[in-house]
Order: sequence, then structure tokens, then C-alpha cells
Amino acid sequence: MQKFVLAVFGSIAIGSAVMAATAVNYARTYAEDRSEIEDLQARYMFALDWQNPDVYASTFTDDGVLVWAGGEVAGHDAIVEEVKTMKAMDRVIIDASTPQRPWRRRHFITNIAVRIDGDRATGRAYWFEFNDDMRDRRPYLGAYGHYEDELRKVNGRWLFSRRQIFNEQRDNMAATDEYPAW
Amino acid sequence: MQKFVLAVFGSIAIGSAVMAATAVNYARTYAEDRSEIEDLQARYMFALDWQNPDVYASTFTDDGVLVWAGGEVAGHDAIVEEVKTMKAMDRVIIDASTPQRPWRRRHFITNIAVRIDGDRATGRAYWFEFNDDMRDRRPYLGAYGHYEDELRKVNGRWLFSRRQIFNEQRDNMAATDEYPAW
Amino acid sequence: MQKFVLAVFGSIAIGSAVMAATAVNYARTYAEDRSEIEDLQARYMFALDWQNPDVYASTFTDDGVLVWAGGEVAGHDAIVEEVKTMKAMDRVIIDASTPQRPWRRRHFITNIAVRIDGDRATGRAYWFEFNDDMRDRRPYLGAYGHYEDELRKVNGRWLFSRRQIFNEQRDNMAATDEYPAW
Repeated sequence: MQKFVLAVFGSIAIGSAVMAATAVNYARTYAEDRSEIEDLQARYMFALDWQNPDVYASTFTDDGVLVWAGGEVAGHDAIVEEVKTMKAMDRVIIDASTPQRPWRRRHFITNIAVRIDGDRATGRAYWFEFNDDMRDRRPYLGAYGHYEDELRKVNGRWLFSRRQIFNEQRDNMAATDEYPAW
Repeated sequence: MQKFVLAVFGSIAIGSAVMAATAVNYARTYAEDRSEIEDLQARYMFALDWQNPDVYASTFTDDGVLVWAGGEVAGHDAIVEEVKTMKAMDRVIIDASTPQRPWRRRHFITNIAVRIDGDRATGRAYWFEFNDDMRDRRPYLGAYGHYEDELRKVNGRWLFSRRQIFNEQRDNMAATDEYPAW
Repeated sequence: MQKFVLAVFGSIAIGSAVMAATAVNYARTYAEDRSEIEDLQARYMFALDWQNPDVYASTFTDDGVLVWAGGEVAGHDAIVEEVKTMKAMDRVIIDASTPQRPWRRRHFITNIAVRIDGDRATGRAYWFEFNDDMRDRRPYLGAYGHYEDELRKVNGRWLFSRRQIFNEQRDNMAATDEYPAW
């Protein structure tokens, strides 16, 4: 507690570089926690791109919140339904263009910054999306942005309790200038 | 064994979300194993892009199998030869267009999901390829897809025993709709 | 020492595959060290893209060296100034084109290979940059290349003591054919 007070006063006095320095603190279990969160982040992407509603929803806590282009969705069942809706919407576009095979939209994650505090964690990461035009399979960059995540360890497993998606190709989902990390 | 039977029955009864949940299990050495596998994945890419046949082949077990655009290649010596062939093929194209310097094709890996079971591991990851057009160095996205990997720990070192490359820009190497992860 | 001599002689005799094999050695703390370095790499990117000079400079040692398009910059204060200059230069272009909101240039890191030797580390990684054209927010790939990093652990924290940026879209910053990894 004393240490925290000192850190706060120090950062007011000396500025944001010190604040950043004090904010970064790795407990002895950092590698374990981070590894499992990285694995969660990867599995989330497979579930998203293969549009597997159950696995996708299983990366969230039961009361997990997802903030994305479709709005804010709360709770396991609502998240399952949201992925089913995404899939149905894609099918309409794909079927209308009668391709040989559907497009293969893929989402990639990099730059994972994670801060662990016991059974809570705060994550920041970048994402981007590639897609293809179906007929000649030409690949293109569709969009990019970042994630702001809150995580909880429930029954020994890290899960998203809140994921907010920022997307630089949509004005209403773009990041602000406020520094999102530490 | 009993645990496995239970997991299978459970997943039949309750569905794929439960199956995903039971499939994700992190042993105490997960962070160590994952870290070394991530490093292997990175070194593989450097070896591929700088077309270093020996380092590339050294990321596989002696009986390692590579399934890629060129077909299925098995064993250390055959993999070394395959990289030499890739390099020679590139040189023909590059020399024909007499550039200032050769293109710089680069392969990137993200979304690494890894499941460890003792000295065996199963990996899934995404990859993509950037290249440049040599004359004005304009960069472009060339292709993307995913990896399905089997790994073995041999003499304390994680190596690919089988890597299959899926490529969404080639119809005969594209992923299926079957969920590849867990 | 004897082991090192043996490795050197062995690699001269048998070639680069053996050298690569002997060069890859993971100490018991590899996962911890690597996790913290990955986190540093991610935080560096947030600081770069949100153009936060203090956090950016805090990822380097006090005598840290940055080799980039702007030249070679040494020391904490000089690095802070460099980021401020980058930001000012961007503003000139952005203000001249009077957009609704500034472009959102983002840098991504993948393929992190790290070799730890006590409180020193050597890193290699790939990077790429996406940007948008401001008016209709169309995203594009701007550039790609790789990093060659030296790191030091100072007061229990991993920092860059030297980062050199290679950029394949600039002839004077492009990689050579010499193998940069191990």
C-alpha cells in the first residue's frame, strides 16, 4: 500500500515515464498466466473465423461482455446467438455471389500486452483482418484495430470478462488519442 | 482413461462447448513448453525467408513430414533438398527480371494455439505472406492460411514431426469447414 | 568454456545445421524472460503508434540505441526527442490534408525469436505497418521488415539496449542475405 502511494506521488511528480515504469510489474506466475491467455487469444480467433459459436462463447465468462460492430452483447447465450447471426449474414452475401467456395475471412492478433493482478488481468492487443474476393481468391487487407480486454481466472481458467473491439475502418469504433496501454 | 471417456460422453450429451472446455488443460510446464515452441515457430520463419535449408530442416524431427504446395516431403534430407529447390526456383524468376535487389518475401505467424501432452504437442496457427514487386518495392499481401502441426520433444528440444500448410489462395490447399482447433 | 570451444569446432567441421542446434539452449527461466520480453515488444508498439515519447523511451536502457530511418539515436533524452519529431512530422502531413480524423498508422510484431544469456538477450522479430488513407479509411500495407535487438535486464526489468530496424521498402534499410538468426 505504502509502495502504491509512493508510486502515485512519484508519477505525479516525475511524469508518465515513471508511471509506465511502476505500472509494469511481473509476478512469479506471469509466464504461466500469459501463456494461457495467449492460447485463449489464439483459440478465440479460430472460433471466430470458423464461426464456431460454442467455442467462441466458451472464451468468455458466463457474464462476459462483448463490444463490437453489432453493439454490446452480454452473457454466454447472447454471445452464442451473435456468432450465429454473423454466420447467417455472411451466408446471405456468399450465396448471392455463388462462388466456388466461400470467402475465407481471417482475423490475426499480435502485440499482446498483458497485466496480471491475481485472478484478474487487463489485456491490450492489435488485430487485423484479411479476406479474399472469392472468384480469383485475391487476398486483401480488410480492416485493423485493437482490443481492450478484461479477463478473469474462473476455476483455474483465464476467460474474457469484457472485450471491446476498436476498428480504424469505422469512425464510430476508432480508437481515441488517449493512451490505451501502460 | 476414465477421464477421457467421461469427456467424450459429456461432450456428446452437452455439446461442443463442453468438449472445447475439457480439451483445454494446461500442465505446470505449459509456459516453458509453449515458449520454446513459439521460439521454434519464429526461427522456422527466419530460415524459410532467408532460405537457409539447414536451419529450416533442423526445426523438424529426423523423420519429420512437411505437407506444402510442392507436395508431401518426408525426412531431414528431403526437406533440405526442398528448400534448395524453392530457392533455385525463386532465383530463376528474380534473375529474369534483373532487379536492383531480389524481392523480399516474408512469412509471418500469429494466433499460435498449442496443446501439450507430455513430449507430444499439437499446434495450430495462422500465417501470411508479404512480398514486394522489386522495382519500386511496393509491398503487397501475397497469401494467407493456417498451419496444422504435430510436435515431438526430442532430446529436450521441441521439433515439428509434421507440419501441414493450408493456403486460402490455392483451391487444393484451402481449409475445410471442419473446425481445426479445440 | 570447454563446451563452447567444442561447439565452435563442431560447427566448423559439420556446418551451420549443427551451429544452429548448439545455439538454441533454453535455461530454466526462459519462459519468464521471454514472456516479459514479449510484453515489452507489445508495449513498444502501443507507445510508437500512440506516439507516447515517455513510454516509448522507457522501453530502452538509459544508454539505449535506436537505429531507424532517421539515423542512429543514442540515450533516453535523444530517443524522447526523436518520437516528438516523428509526431510533429506526421501532424504537418495530416493537417495539410484536413481529414475528419488523423490516419491511424499501426505497427505489428510477429516471429519473435529470443536467445537469453543471463541478464543479456538477443532478439529477432518481424514487423509490418498498416495505415489508412484518411478520407475513406481504406487500409493498406505500408511497409515490412525485421528487428535486430540487444536487450539487458536492468533492475529486474528487460529493456532494449539496441534496436536496429530493417525495412524492405527502403533500399538503405533492407536486410542483407546474411542469415540474421540462429
